[in-house]
Amino acid sequence: MDVYEKALQKHEQWKGKIKTEVTSKVNNAKDLTYAYTPGVAEPCKKIHEDKSLSYKYTIKQNTIAVISDGTAVLGLGDIGPEAAMPVMEGKCVLFKEFGGVNAFPIVLDTKDPDEIINTIKNISPGFGGINLEDISSPRCVYIENKLKEMLDIPVFHDDQHGTAIVTVAALINALRIVNKKASDIKVVVSGAGAAGFSITKLLIDFGVENIIVTDSKGTINKDHLEKDNPVKKEIAKITNKDNLKATLKEAIKDSDVFIGVSAPNILDENDIKNMASDPIVFAMANPIPEIDYDLCKKAGARIVATGRSDYPNQINNVLAFPGIFKGALEKHASAITDKMKMAAAKALADMIPEDKLSEDYIIVSAFEKNVAENVAEAVKKEVK
Amino acid sequence: MDVYEKALQKHEQWKGKIKTEVTSKVNNAKDLTYAYTPGVAEPCKKIHEDKSLSYKYTIKQNTIAVISDGTAVLGLGDIGPEAAMPVMEGKCVLFKEFGGVNAFPIVLDTKDPDEIINTIKNISPGFGGINLEDISSPRCVYIENKLKEMLDIPVFHDDQHGTAIVTVAALINALRIVNKKASDIKVVVSGAGAAGFSITKLLIDFGVENIIVTDSKGTINKDHLEKDNPVKKEIAKITNKDNLKATLKEAIKDSDVFIGVSAPNILDENDIKNMASDPIVFAMANPIPEIDYDLCKKAGARIVATGRSDYPNQINNVLAFPGIFKGALEKHASAITDKMKMAAAKALADMIPEDKLSEDYIIVSAFEKNVAENVAEAVKKEVK
Repeated sequence: MDVYEKALQKHEQWKGKIKTEVTSKVNNAKDLTYAYTPGVAEPCKKIHEDKSLSYKYTIKQNTIAVISDGTAVLGLGDIGPEAAMPVMEGKCVLFKEFGGVNAFPIVLDTKDPDEIINTIKNISPGFGGINLEDISSPRCVYIENKLKEMLDIPVFHDDQHGTAIVTVAALINALRIVNKKASDIKVVVSGAGAAGFSITKLLIDFGVENIIVTDSKGTINKDHLEKDNPVKKEIAKITNKDNLKATLKEAIKDSDVFIGVSAPNILDENDIKNMASDPIVFAMANPIPEIDYDLCKKAGARIVATGRSDYPNQINNVLAFPGIFKGALEKHASAITDKMKMAAAKALADMIPEDKLSEDYIIVSAFEKNVAENVAEAVKKEVK
Repeated sequence: MDVYEKALQKHEQWKGKIKTEVTSKVNNAKDLTYAYTPGVAEPCKKIHEDKSLSYKYTIKQNTIAVISDGTAVLGLGDIGPEAAMPVMEGKCVLFKEFGGVNAFPIVLDTKDPDEIINTIKNISPGFGGINLEDISSPRCVYIENKLKEMLDIPVFHDDQHGTAIVTVAALINALRIVNKKASDIKVVVSGAGAAGFSITKLLIDFGVENIIVTDSKGTINKDHLEKDNPVKKEIAKITNKDNLKATLKEAIKDSDVFIGVSAPNILDENDIKNMASDPIVFAMANPIPEIDYDLCKKAGARIVATGRSDYPNQINNVLAFPGIFKGALEKHASAITDKMKMAAAKALADMIPEDKLSEDYIIVSAFEKNVAENVAEAVKKEVK
């Protein structure tokens, strides 16, 4: 039985991957008077007087919603809300198992961005945070930005920022090994969707000055300022200062770092050979990377990371999102700021001591101890 | 420490009355491949091919949403969504503890009926049912009816139908004791809101022909057909055939049954004395009934029920809703029909064997064994 057949069988056995559990057992009529009427009126009244007390008396203190419209699920694309549920439940499992965060999956019967925004705003009062998931680009950027303006709880699109945080964490350690500075390197990002955009912004925060982003047609350049895609427009504003108009294969020449969030097998050995000394290649297209791991090493890449668990250096979002929300919830944070994201990246990088750091170990594994705790502590220090 | 102080203290200790629990433990990288990527793609694909498989592979099979806009919470009124959360969490506790149903609380940041409808429609795909709660009348009737038309999962406003089901269950047994037939009795219902309306409809289903409903101004009569309130309009259509225009105190004369879902202390001893032989009085205003229990008995009522746990015959919704949804979910029901409600009422009534039946025991207690199981079995037989 392969992994897919086994997974299907297990999903049938699990009967849903999460369930609710009661913290306030009701064994008799007396218990009912505290958990329900008449006693429950008291926390209601207190919260009515002071809304912030909902963090003290309700699940808002440790519960988030994982929300998707099912338009960009895994590599499956727009499969609709019902079919997105197994992924959303899985995400909730990861939140609980890795971060101790109660997460509940909600899938939406609408693809209209403004209706999505309004629906999420309407259901937000009971939650301590919103994790957006598998919403197609560029809609996801618009949706996230609008919700951030409207809500006083964290809104976080993990496909963008989770990937960015772990990528930067791995890059911090890769640069330590090759002894290069962020301000000196040239980075090529392949993929001009939501993830590529978020990675680019966090690289700039980290101090990288020379970044070129490509889509399937070539470099994002000043021409994109005139085009319709709002994400590519933003990328054009903050990257490619020399306005290079070229293909990916031309752009990658002399670069120090390649970061792929795009498509399988778009690079070959020559592309790696054309890079600067000590090439760093993060080929994160999943499950088939932008270049095969072994081929990439053979071509001379010094450090290679992928999204896969069967090679060294897995860039895995689960290193970030459970700890990010754990920290945000513990501080009743109203947003997840750029400073919190960078703090998370640095905390992840710093988990590997200098004497353990190597080409094959630039990022910790999800199953190492205290990953979420370390991330949460770092994040909490940045909450005002 | 009184019940309110104690409840407040306990709410702080509970840190939320429910939490999520994982049924699919993730102990290593291999486990991740089944619960999450890549294996999770398989149930996603299957559901994409056939939406009904979401009942097989996701939490839809055993999970409902408990949804409120916070406009009619307990006796507290319109206290808003955040302040409604302790009640909604409490309701979810009862669903789990009494029916084994996973229920998750969602409170809404809107009071606009059409926006509420649209929001609930949008978040419905992942749920197996929707329990509406503490939404003010007559809005709640409009909202429930619209959602029933739109959705293919059960939508149930417990404040209406839960009360109605348990009321009719208790009435079935009360009539057994006084040896009267439904078709022969005169019933006065005090309260022309959503609960009074639902009770009236279920009484008619049960075979009661002579029903008069009153609000604070007197009997609902044909004049209400011309007025704005859609619930009172519906009541006017199906009750008060002789078009009696009178006060409650006049209307109650010669009635066999009084059912109150209205206000404290609106009846006195004389009103009970004016009723027909063997008066049956369900005074369910909470926490203070339409007439004091002891006063009512002293005035000659043969059978008295209230909403309180400290007197005999508590009319308690928790007898109905956990079993109703348990049965509906087990059959993947697309709605909760009038037949299912009546079946639930009869199953509850029949839990008391003839030799145990008495004036002080016309309805079982929530803590008796197999209440939800019995209700669920009866409900399931009515699902096509």
